[in-house]
Amino acid sequence: MAGNSFGDLFRITTFGESHGKAIGVIVDGCPSNIDIDEAFIQSELDKRKPGQSKITTQRKESDTAQILSGVFEGKSTGTPISIVIPNEDQRSKDYSHIADKFRPSHADYTYQMKYGIRDYRGGGRSSARETAARVAAGAIAKLFLKQQGIEIFAHVSGVGQIEAPNVDSSDLKSLLETRESNIARCADLATANEMIDFIDNVRKNGDTVGGRISTIIRGVPAGLGEPVFDRLHAELGKAMLSINAVHGFEYGSGFEGSRMRGSEHNDIFTTENDKVVTRTNFSGGIQGGISNGMDITFKVAFKAVATIMRDQETLNQAGEETTISGKGRHDPCVVPRAVIIVEAMAALVIADQLLKQRAYRM
Amino acid sequence: MAGNSFGDLFRITTFGESHGKAIGVIVDGCPSNIDIDEAFIQSELDKRKPGQSKITTQRKESDTAQILSGVFEGKSTGTPISIVIPNEDQRSKDYSHIADKFRPSHADYTYQMKYGIRDYRGGGRSSARETAARVAAGAIAKLFLKQQGIEIFAHVSGVGQIEAPNVDSSDLKSLLETRESNIARCADLATANEMIDFIDNVRKNGDTVGGRISTIIRGVPAGLGEPVFDRLHAELGKAMLSINAVHGFEYGSGFEGSRMRGSEHNDIFTTENDKVVTRTNFSGGIQGGISNGMDITFKVAFKAVATIMRDQETLNQAGEETTISGKGRHDPCVVPRAVIIVEAMAALVIADQLLKQRAYRM
Amino acid sequence: MAGNSFGDLFRITTFGESHGKAIGVIVDGCPSNIDIDEAFIQSELDKRKPGQSKITTQRKESDTAQILSGVFEGKSTGTPISIVIPNEDQRSKDYSHIADKFRPSHADYTYQMKYGIRDYRGGGRSSARETAARVAAGAIAKLFLKQQGIEIFAHVSGVGQIEAPNVDSSDLKSLLETRESNIARCADLATANEMIDFIDNVRKNGDTVGGRISTIIRGVPAGLGEPVFDRLHAELGKAMLSINAVHGFEYGSGFEGSRMRGSEHNDIFTTENDKVVTRTNFSGGIQGGISNGMDITFKVAFKAVATIMRDQETLNQAGEETTISGKGRHDPCVVPRAVIIVEAMAALVIADQLLKQRAYRM
Amino acid sequence: MAGNSFGDLFRITTFGESHGKAIGVIVDGCPSNIDIDEAFIQSELDKRKPGQSKITTQRKESDTAQILSGVFEGKSTGTPISIVIPNEDQRSKDYSHIADKFRPSHADYTYQMKYGIRDYRGGGRSSARETAARVAAGAIAKLFLKQQGIEIFAHVSGVGQIEAPNVDSSDLKSLLETRESNIARCADLATANEMIDFIDNVRKNGDTVGGRISTIIRGVPAGLGEPVFDRLHAELGKAMLSINAVHGFEYGSGFEGSRMRGSEHNDIFTTENDKVVTRTNFSGGIQGGISNGMDITFKVAFKAVATIMRDQETLNQAGEETTISGKGRHDPCVVPRAVIIVEAMAALVIADQLLKQRAYRM
Repeated sequence: MAGNSFGDLFRITTFGESHGKAIGVIVDGCPSNIDIDEAFIQSELDKRKPGQSKITTQRKESDTAQILSGVFEGKSTGTPISIVIPNEDQRSKDYSHIADKFRPSHADYTYQMKYGIRDYRGGGRSSARETAARVAAGAIAKLFLKQQGIEIFAHVSGVGQIEAPNVDSSDLKSLLETRESNIARCADLATANEMIDFIDNVRKNGDTVGGRISTIIRGVPAGLGEPVFDRLHAELGKAMLSINAVHGFEYGSGFEGSRMRGSEHNDIFTTENDKVVTRTNFSGGIQGGISNGMDITFKVAFKAVATIMRDQETLNQAGEETTISGKGRHDPCVVPRAVIIVEAMAALVIADQLLKQRAYRM
Repeated sequence: MAGNSFGDLFRITTFGESHGKAIGVIVDGCPSNIDIDEAFIQSELDKRKPGQSKITTQRKESDTAQILSGVFEGKSTGTPISIVIPNEDQRSKDYSHIADKFRPSHADYTYQMKYGIRDYRGGGRSSARETAARVAAGAIAKLFLKQQGIEIFAHVSGVGQIEAPNVDSSDLKSLLETRESNIARCADLATANEMIDFIDNVRKNGDTVGGRISTIIRGVPAGLGEPVFDRLHAELGKAMLSINAVHGFEYGSGFEGSRMRGSEHNDIFTTENDKVVTRTNFSGGIQGGISNGMDITFKVAFKAVATIMRDQETLNQAGEETTISGKGRHDPCVVPRAVIIVEAMAALVIADQLLKQRAYRM
Repeated sequence: MAGNSFGDLFRITTFGESHGKAIGVIVDGCPSNIDIDEAFIQSELDKRKPGQSKITTQRKESDTAQILSGVFEGKSTGTPISIVIPNEDQRSKDYSHIADKFRPSHADYTYQMKYGIRDYRGGGRSSARETAARVAAGAIAKLFLKQQGIEIFAHVSGVGQIEAPNVDSSDLKSLLETRESNIARCADLATANEMIDFIDNVRKNGDTVGGRISTIIRGVPAGLGEPVFDRLHAELGKAMLSINAVHGFEYGSGFEGSRMRGSEHNDIFTTENDKVVTRTNFSGGIQGGISNGMDITFKVAFKAVATIMRDQETLNQAGEETTISGKGRHDPCVVPRAVIIVEAMAALVIADQLLKQRAYRM
Repeated sequence: MAGNSFGDLFRITTFGESHGKAIGVIVDGCPSNIDIDEAFIQSELDKRKPGQSKITTQRKESDTAQILSGVFEGKSTGTPISIVIPNEDQRSKDYSHIADKFRPSHADYTYQMKYGIRDYRGGGRSSARETAARVAAGAIAKLFLKQQGIEIFAHVSGVGQIEAPNVDSSDLKSLLETRESNIARCADLATANEMIDFIDNVRKNGDTVGGRISTIIRGVPAGLGEPVFDRLHAELGKAMLSINAVHGFEYGSGFEGSRMRGSEHNDIFTTENDKVVTRTNFSGGIQGGISNGMDITFKVAFKAVATIMRDQETLNQAGEETTISGKGRHDPCVVPRAVIIVEAMAALVIADQLLKQRAYRM
């Protein structure tokens, strides 16, 4: 109820503040006998960690995951898998200036109003540092899904006004290679270079910018998703909207689809190699809230990072007008690191829905 | 888990198929001593019911709500409020042609794959008829919220390529009057007329079209929404994405906000009549997943209705190619009736979050 | 959260007051393609209904179940099964004397304190009439479990100071026949007769008496129950303690087992027809909270019905001392009718746990 | 769903195995601004820890709690409080003999059947070591309840055939002093000495014995507990039955009450110092599942510890007959250490119900 858990059968609960002793997660409901590849979990965390490139924050944290429970001789035992990631590079004094001031478009004011107290250091619980715990948990979900033949791929498809062209998605492995070959994490190289230059320029101006991430989930069997309220895309939408800075979610044809006519938008069923498929996929792999076996596709919009390296007017805790300066080490654009968070949340949703479908389907 | 419930503390569970005996809902968790105005519940259902105008389905159902429990001498008792809406105008034979065929972009195929059985009459459980139950429950939530000084207003802000201009939202009552004065349910009259003509034209062509609904929630105190996973906008997003035909959700600046820079996007805090406000509201009233006291704003995208009055290729249950004809009485565009569904789901989210905040805040 | 739902994957939500229009239940999560035998559901309700014999209340209600949804051509569809049982024989005026008075050891006072309002007629929501909805839902769970080879048998093993001897449980069908041959619902005929005479005597004295029900669940595979908090016996215990008038629950050796030594109490593993069994079953079929394949056994204690046909001192709503007279038609002893409620709740627990184990076990 | 969480609004999730790196707990939903007294948490853990006296296990663990999150400058912030307790005195080799054998009346067999894998060292997740995490979480719940004027007191009221007399409960502080003055943790000193001698004797015989714990909760306002399924005593019952080795739960008059008549058992309402009270308290402070303001009383039965220092016949994983010897360092009787676990679980239930009642009561 207090909002720090996600999922029902494959359920995670995260904890930790930006400048506390550690952050972490309990994964409760991972099936037993799954190979828990710790190196894979770490490699996922490395893709999210700060300090990766010139277009991410220069903060350095190794984000080393320690598994405390739930794994025996390399395999999941069915009991809770607890993972702790100690906090390292904390410069809490960087934040003393906000102890008493509300940063614009941050959560300082709302946490203060909600709880009557807040750990202001680094944004406390509202910091995107919390998402490292999700990435660790998502890595476990991915290990489970891989065994079930399910792949998840996300990349940066837009930064500011820059839009990547549609990429050929027939070979996800090759797309992943292209994505990992550039620091923008865009699967189209020309666009990636444009994005990198743009973000770097924005950064030099002490400003930040938003962006978009597109995702493909392949190999999901037909039948996942629980109507009426827990439709597969509603669960994906909630998962994505729970990520820091996300302001929008669309699947399949999305907002653009709301401009189309039914005669254009309907996905005609046919067969391909004896498998039921649709000729188009405006449904984004989900019909009536349930997967139909086609690729699941969705897009997520991230606003610009709120911390900018400029002076801004604001209020202090007493309600008086004051000025706040941009300090600390922050990302000029969050999407290159957020790609792995989007994948992690998608993996958690699919794992949870897969277990539900296993429960009910005789 | 099976997906027919929504909310935690203010929780609803709906039941019923399009052509079964009845649909209905249990509202569990409505606080006691709320005046349950049955006429208001009925008036809300009347705004959603079929057969309202030339641009909605011509199917006729009175959608009369019967309260079976939880109300004593006009007041809620704190026990479950059960509401039943009998089904009336069922022409199940209209659907015999789909007993064995999968309608394109409907849920026939996915329900069959999920459950191995389906009540094909009128789409069964996947029919948008289920949303009448949500409207009845939402009306109860609205009665509770009204007592708390919270108002919810939605209207049709787009149909196909037509976009309504931003409306002056200072007086929600007046906006509501304008909205209810036209069958498109758009708060801008000139645009409404354009929409009506357009939808009527689409209908005459045996086609359908999608649209968009914009919402304002006013009077929500700062502090609602549970970080990390149950952010207020994540709950609103899930609620909206659970409505039939919805393909996208954005709040505040939304997708457009992802094209902006931080220096433009940040909402500067200031005071107005001794109240903390922000100069702009790109945050849509929510920061860090928690309400900040400003208007909560979001937009929802609906795809075109999948049933068109044309022949379409498809598969039958045996996987053979066949043709399906458009039959039955269907909406050419769903958004005029969906306005009230969007409001209902928004009310349910806010009521639930309000109770949570009451629980935790000392 | 508001307490009217039970179970996670096989989940029920009940509604209704004693003297409202109807009571009922939504079963959400029944797997699809289960034969829903309406005659069986009715026969279960008939075993619980009032007016069965001279030792039950003389109130008459047919308790006719109407299925409103979730069943198509005799089979469950996987969507919510809604059942409504109209209220019939209401003599609300029998209760006008308690509108303003708190009946001793009833829920009048606590409902008033909790909600600030109460439907006093027949006890409102606190009436054991609510359990009819559980019996209907439990019947559906039994139909599912039967298909899985699981049987549930309960009988009255004690009334007041009378204790039935241990019965030979090798043939549950024969035990059931004996139980149904007498109005005390005890599987030992001699004891049954003693109980009947005793209850009838108590009734003639305007008094009531408590009793005990013993249960055997057979055919449960090893592996059901979720440690740590949702142990199989903890779920059974909660289920039983949620039945009106229950004051105690024990499984396996129970309270008596707490007087034994480990060397006596340990159940030694051995094999029987190539199946792992234990020589004794002090564990009651559950070890570490998980079923071990042996019979699951537990006992439930019911206090005496609080409504007695005598004058009692009490307080009125203003807090003044007053006298209340026993009126209405009530059971002198609740256990003969409660047998079927105990079975229903046990069925709901096992069905829920079975679905969970299916979800997790690869 | 996987069973490692307890509570809804005040919710805990525990993790960890007996011989893993650590055990621990996340408390999600503790209200903000509660003083988190770490010394108190540690003192509670010290009452549960092994090695306290000659009648507990001689295993030594300091059970030092480390708070990783959710506390800022000594106060709860409303975010998850994560507590880790490192494992220290592990002699995993003590358990190599059970890697392949099922200990009688332990969870070895059922975990193997449920998960197809088990961490056999020290019983893994099924070890009562997990309850240290509950005690830490329960300490936080107690700190919250103390602020609300609620006290919880439990003591050993029975060991084997020994029963303590009813103790005068007017002064809980004095009872607590007596309880803590003896290693049996019985509030009656004469009985305590009898128990100590008895347990020591049992231990010398390489045997174990069960016992009973009685609890009083004082200061709970009327109105807590959610009918119908989440009755206050049903929640307490589930909480207690979830503790290792518990085989029975009764509240108020309990099993003995089922032998009484209504005319004896009914608790007559009257007033005392202008407060509504009952003359007797057979209801155990709970009527209709809701607290009535009187002391809440219940009793819990623990079976004898399954590990005895004797040879026992059993099966190995291949299903072959074998012999197992008692090794390791174990408690001859679990109840003296379990007193604090019972209190912790009771505190968690009351804290959760208190938050619920705050949410709903206008």
